[in-house]
Parts: sequence; structure tokens; C-alpha cells
Amino acid sequence: MPRAEATRRPYPLAKVYGLLEPGPVVLMTTARRGHHNVMPMSWHTMIEFEPPLVGCVISDRNYSHATLKSTRQCVIAIPSVDIADQVVRCGNTSGRDVDKFATIGLTPLPASQVQAPLVAECFANLECRIFDTRMVNRYGLFVLEVVKAWIDPRRKGARTLHHRGWGSFMVAGETIRLPSRMR
Amino acid sequence: MPRAEATRRPYPLAKVYGLLEPGPVVLMTTARRGHHNVMPMSWHTMIEFEPPLVGCVISDRNYSHATLKSTRQCVIAIPSVDIADQVVRCGNTSGRDVDKFATIGLTPLPASQVQAPLVAECFANLECRIFDTRMVNRYGLFVLEVVKAWIDPRRKGARTLHHRGWGSFMVAGETIRLPSRMR
Repeated sequence: MPRAEATRRPYPLAKVYGLLEPGPVVLMTTARRGHHNVMPMSWHTMIEFEPPLVGCVISDRNYSHATLKSTRQCVIAIPSVDIADQVVRCGNTSGRDVDKFATIGLTPLPASQVQAPLVAECFANLECRIFDTRMVNRYGLFVLEVVKAWIDPRRKGARTLHHRGWGSFMVAGETIRLPSRMR
Repeated sequence: MPRAEATRRPYPLAKVYGLLEPGPVVLMTTARRGHHNVMPMSWHTMIEFEPPLVGCVISDRNYSHATLKSTRQCVIAIPSVDIADQVVRCGNTSGRDVDKFATIGLTPLPASQVQAPLVAECFANLECRIFDTRMVNRYGLFVLEVVKAWIDPRRKGARTLHHRGWGSFMVAGETIRLPSRMR
């Protein structure tokens, strides 16, 4: 596998919230015994700025649920509209049946802190460890800590996907500046 | 106050996730002893489709935190870019000091199931009751149940705001259709 550093730069953990707070569809990757998996996910929220904590709801009907629970590691990768077809195919197939990376044409890259792979085609990749599993049985809600973040500097301004349901996706539009004092 | 029904229609609870899952900035309203408050919020995620459960992270530094905790009711209202200025002013002032509705020029409307007001200027309004407070002390994470939803049918396709931080907001772009089987 090519090294992440070839196309990526470390991204400050204090700025991670700005990537997730707008609500993009993300890809979550997991790995167990050399077997990679990747699934799309939209049910996530920031919980703390720094260290960045992210709440993610993952149904136990998803193959990734058990892998995340047992390995306690994952990567949250943020795709842009350019790979919308691959994102959709990720959601339409199960890692139980196929090697989704190979089938769908996504490239796994080694991460630095976790076994789960980065996704080369995504403009941002967040290496995560489980921080709290107390809400997993009740809601499928994992609290993750982002321990390392990567960004592809060539992809600044990448337009994210935002899921409305049943095949309908909003594509990120323009960014405007307003006199807000909110972090 | 004018009645909500004048400009609003009930919206199916099963479709509420499609409003929140794309990750818009929302306004949360609360009310206690006749005093209304409203604050912007972006740290939210769907937790269950139906009944719709929403996880919201609200710092205890926000005036609304205590009101929500004690009244166990709120409204999540979804603004469009047309009222971006009011959204920003909501975040730049505290309900401790002023009546934000009056100061900012937002119109409270009576809700049907909760004391907190709807926001007339928002295209969607979700009446919520607290479902679970077990994560409030640790993370400020409230689990809310949406008990009634309203939409303004004249505002179909309203463009939402998505917070990137420090005055930077992404405005919702086009909606595309893809062959996804994901609910």
C-alpha cells in the first residue's frame, strides 16, 4: 500500500470539528484479522472540541458494528461528491459478503495509530479509538476520540454529500462568512 | 400570537430524520415561566428513525441547558439561509441578558405539545420532549423524542446553513438522486 504521507498532511485535532459539524456523509472503515470493511454513515455529531470526541450511531445490523466493538478502532473518512457512486455502492452491499474496498474500487492506506485503513479517495481521514461504549447497547451510540487527522491539501474546498434519505443527497454549496463569534 | 396552522402543516414523524440528517444549524427554543429563549446548535444527530430520537449536545455554559433540563421540553426549528443574520445574532447574545426573540426579530408561535415556542421564520419546527438524560452530566448530551413536526409547505427546498466554525457557514447546494437503497 502507498504511504498516507504521499498525498496527505496531518490536520490539527482542534480543527476537526469544522469537518464533521456541517453533517457530511462519512465512510467508516474497520479492520479485523487483515480483513477491511467500509460503510457509509450519517448519524454522527461532535461531542467535544478537543480532544475531538464524536458520537456515532451504528446499528447492530451493520457488519461494522461488531468489528468496531471488538477492535475499538476505526477511521472516519470524508468523501466528496466526486466519489458519490462509490459511497452509494458502499451502502448497498454488506462487508459480510464481499471485500468492499476491492469490489467498489476504493484504496485502503495504512493509518498511523489504528489498524483500520484510511481511504485514499477521501479528502479527510480521522483515525479514531473508542472512548465510551456505555450507550452502545441502548442506542448503538459509540463515543469515539479522534487521535490523528489527515487532510489532502490538493482537495481544499471539496464538496461533501449530505444524506436526505432514499437516494436523495444534498451537495455542499457555497461557503459564506458571517459575523458569528461561535467557535 | 398567530396560530401555527395558518402557515404550517403537520409533517410525518417517520420523515423527520431527512430534515436533520444532512446536518443543518438548528435553533433550539425553550420556555420557562413565560420566558422564551432561543439558541443556535449544530451538535446533533439522529439516534432512531421512529419515534424520532435526536441526540443534542448543549454545553452547560448555555442558558438553555438549565431550562431544557428542568422543563424537559424544547422545539428544534430549522432556519434557512434567508434568516442567517438572525441565526448569527442568536449565537452572539445570551438569553440571560435579553429577550432574544424580540431583540433579534423572530416570531414565537404556540406549539401543540410543549410550552417552548415554534419559530415562525423557520421552515420546519420539531416539538421535542426529553427521552433520556443519562449522558447529560458527562457530555451535555440530551436524547430528545420528536413528538410533533411541522413544515411550511411554501418553503419547500429551503437552503439550510451548515456551520464550519468562526463565522464560516456552508449553504446547502443542489439535491441529487443516486441509486441508494439506504433509508
